Amino acid sequence: MVILKIGGSLTLNCENLLKELKIQIKELNDINNLIKTKLLIIPGGGNFANNVRDIYEKTNLSDDGAHKLATLCTDLTGVYMKDISNVKTANNIYDVKDMFRYEDLLIFLPSNLILSTDKLPRSWDVTSDSFAGYIADLIDCKKLIIATDVDGIYNKYPEGKLLNTINAKSIKGFTSIDKYLPEFICSNNIECYVVNGNFPKRIISILENKIDTYTKILK
Amino acid sequence: MVILKIGGSLTLNCENLLKELKIQIKELNDINNLIKTKLLIIPGGGNFANNVRDIYEKTNLSDDGAHKLATLCTDLTGVYMKDISNVKTANNIYDVKDMFRYEDLLIFLPSNLILSTDKLPRSWDVTSDSFAGYIADLIDCKKLIIATDVDGIYNKYPEGKLLNTINAKSIKGFTSIDKYLPEFICSNNIECYVVNGNFPKRIISILENKIDTYTKILK
Repeated sequence: MVILKIGGSLTLNCENLLKELKIQIKELNDINNLIKTKLLIIPGGGNFANNVRDIYEKTNLSDDGAHKLATLCTDLTGVYMKDISNVKTANNIYDVKDMFRYEDLLIFLPSNLILSTDKLPRSWDVTSDSFAGYIADLIDCKKLIIATDVDGIYNKYPEGKLLNTINAKSIKGFTSIDKYLPEFICSNNIECYVVNGNFPKRIISILENKIDTYTKILK
Repeated sequence: MVILKIGGSLTLNCENLLKELKIQIKELNDINNLIKTKLLIIPGGGNFANNVRDIYEKTNLSDDGAHKLATLCTDLTGVYMKDISNVKTANNIYDVKDMFRYEDLLIFLPSNLILSTDKLPRSWDVTSDSFAGYIADLIDCKKLIIATDVDGIYNKYPEGKLLNTINAKSIKGFTSIDKYLPEFICSNNIECYVVNGNFPKRIISILENKIDTYTKILK
């Protein structure tokens, strides 16, 4: 099983991404009968979460309340992704395992699990990137892909050089992934990739361990 | 029991409204020991729902999907209202009745009920105004208050005259309440009021059947 976090920046054009992944993972699995690829999609909060941030800045909404709301927002993006792609959703790991017997691709609605265990810090440093890392750890998934609208991690941004690899310890503070995820990658045995979700083929390349345009984060 | 819908336009400044209602309804109930006022708040979708509309306009999100998402958005506003006011939430009528034995004020999270029964048209004409009307009908509540950021319904807007009363049949299309609610009021025996939520005292006046600045919608 591989976890793919689809960032909020891709919300408005993820229909093509989801449909392409559906087709190409089916092709992969039709060729390879022994090891099937199963892709669990974790949605970002997108503009729903940006609205929580706006309310947080303008009212007395607490940090805990903002965390809960932002967590609920990832479900909304998941419901939207299901609607435009017809990829099924699940909101617990039991159902994920059950449904993966017949499905290659599932959208996870994170709030039920994230609020059930309440193991992540209730902070704006924790976004759905960390949800994806946490879930990868929980289900012992060794490959985590973060799809955004840039090609990977740059040595500076904008106008920097795209990095093929980077050490998790050194990426804090100058990239689009959240501040808590690197700690997660460091303390767990997870391969993490940052890739441009506007090019579905690059995600397939990661699934096939092929060289392409993306950044691999080393532990 | 009285139902109060708090519109999205009041989201950013409903902390004072909720706190004032809490105090003033407690005062009302302390004076009147025979008939206690119980206020069930239905939250609007606010900017969360506006983001659904934005996604709906820019992507292939279906009408059904948009309805589901907009319904889920009302829960988010409810979670926010709970956080800033410490008024408790419920997501089913059993719990509402149970909790009203000890509480004067509750926030209802509508999506569980609205999606469970799925009795309302899946249309942008149906918003949380109609949710409030539907729930009022379901629990046989005879008084429905719609709080917005204007003083009531005007004979024209802007720069019209505020109406003390208006017939439900004649308000379609020139007011801030949704297009489906008037039909609801017409076909059911519900007293409906439109009032400015920035003045909590006016809501209390409606609860006490006192004259104040608001519009009463006649069946």
